[in-house]
Amino acid sequence: MNKGCLLVVSAPSGAGKTTLLKRILADTPGIGFSVSHTTRAPRAGEENGVDYHFIDRQEFTRRREADDFLEWAEVHGNFYGTSREAVQQALIRGEDILLDIDVQGARQLKEQTGVEAVFLFIAPPSARVLAQRLHGRGTDSREVIELRLENARREMQEADWYDYLVVNDELSEAEGLLRAIITAERCRRRRRPDGTPLPPFDS
Amino acid sequence: MNKGCLLVVSAPSGAGKTTLLKRILADTPGIGFSVSHTTRAPRAGEENGVDYHFIDRQEFTRRREADDFLEWAEVHGNFYGTSREAVQQALIRGEDILLDIDVQGARQLKEQTGVEAVFLFIAPPSARVLAQRLHGRGTDSREVIELRLENARREMQEADWYDYLVVNDELSEAEGLLRAIITAERCRRRRRPDGTPLPPFDS
Repeated sequence: MNKGCLLVVSAPSGAGKTTLLKRILADTPGIGFSVSHTTRAPRAGEENGVDYHFIDRQEFTRRREADDFLEWAEVHGNFYGTSREAVQQALIRGEDILLDIDVQGARQLKEQTGVEAVFLFIAPPSARVLAQRLHGRGTDSREVIELRLENARREMQEADWYDYLVVNDELSEAEGLLRAIITAERCRRRRRPDGTPLPPFDS
Repeated sequence: MNKGCLLVVSAPSGAGKTTLLKRILADTPGIGFSVSHTTRAPRAGEENGVDYHFIDRQEFTRRREADDFLEWAEVHGNFYGTSREAVQQALIRGEDILLDIDVQGARQLKEQTGVEAVFLFIAPPSARVLAQRLHGRGTDSREVIELRLENARREMQEADWYDYLVVNDELSEAEGLLRAIITAERCRRRRRPDGTPLPPFDS
């Protein structure tokens, strides 16, 4: 039985998920990040093995067919997948794991029996703010931004089956909510048969 | 449908529950405390209508038979009950409500259909520390302390069906855990059909 907790985080592009998760990972003891495999090209500043494991389509297909992925998805024409082995080993060691995946992958995990996870959705405060952020980022063409906004509208429809909803209006406030959720989930876990045992109470 | 969240908190006597709840209530906006009815005598410093509604056995029995209580219990020979009307009105107004009740009352609520609540157990770090605290408090005779310790052993067996377990070893740390749980539960609530709606996302 797993001793750690799997925290699945999804958000539309531009909701601020990557920034938020980096802040949490920087100073939360006992929490790790599952580095996904992807076939998309690295963005400026992204490092192989840190941000993603960058692999080609042939390698991705081989791994997918070998059932190496806990979940996988195609987003904006690229493949993304999570290594089953890496996640399970970390959870068995007692680490909590943050898993940054899109709504398709999250739904796969949710519907799989035997994978116990907590689902967290980060939403932008509005479509207007999201559009401003995507334009401000300056990394995508107008066409790509339109595609992301269209996807965001679709993804927002899925937010209601997640366990938690964090609206990222002000970054440090959203960060505080994420930290509270992680802390609370650890208190949930403590009373579980497979979590940390109750304190001794014999005399 | 209720807009607020009902947080049920139980703990063995001496676990620090009253102190913790007072700290939370002092500076958490949007959260109220359900003042219980009891037949026990006021302790030094306790105020009618603030700490408890102090009523006699006859009045308690009359109300219980009129189904005025959401839950009731007999603890250490005294009756305790929670006004159904007061809790429901507060939840409908959108307040979160802290309900300080013992494990018997909490189990009644848990088993009642239609009462949506979050269950939180505060535990002392060990039986030895609990005994020290009860003796240090200086309010109870040795016999009453023995009775409380015996009850604590029984109550600790119930902790595993609560949603959250907070071990109160160091007060300010336990306070932080409680605050995180309340914050996280509000993020859970936000994605519910009967909670705060999702942010507008039409354009």
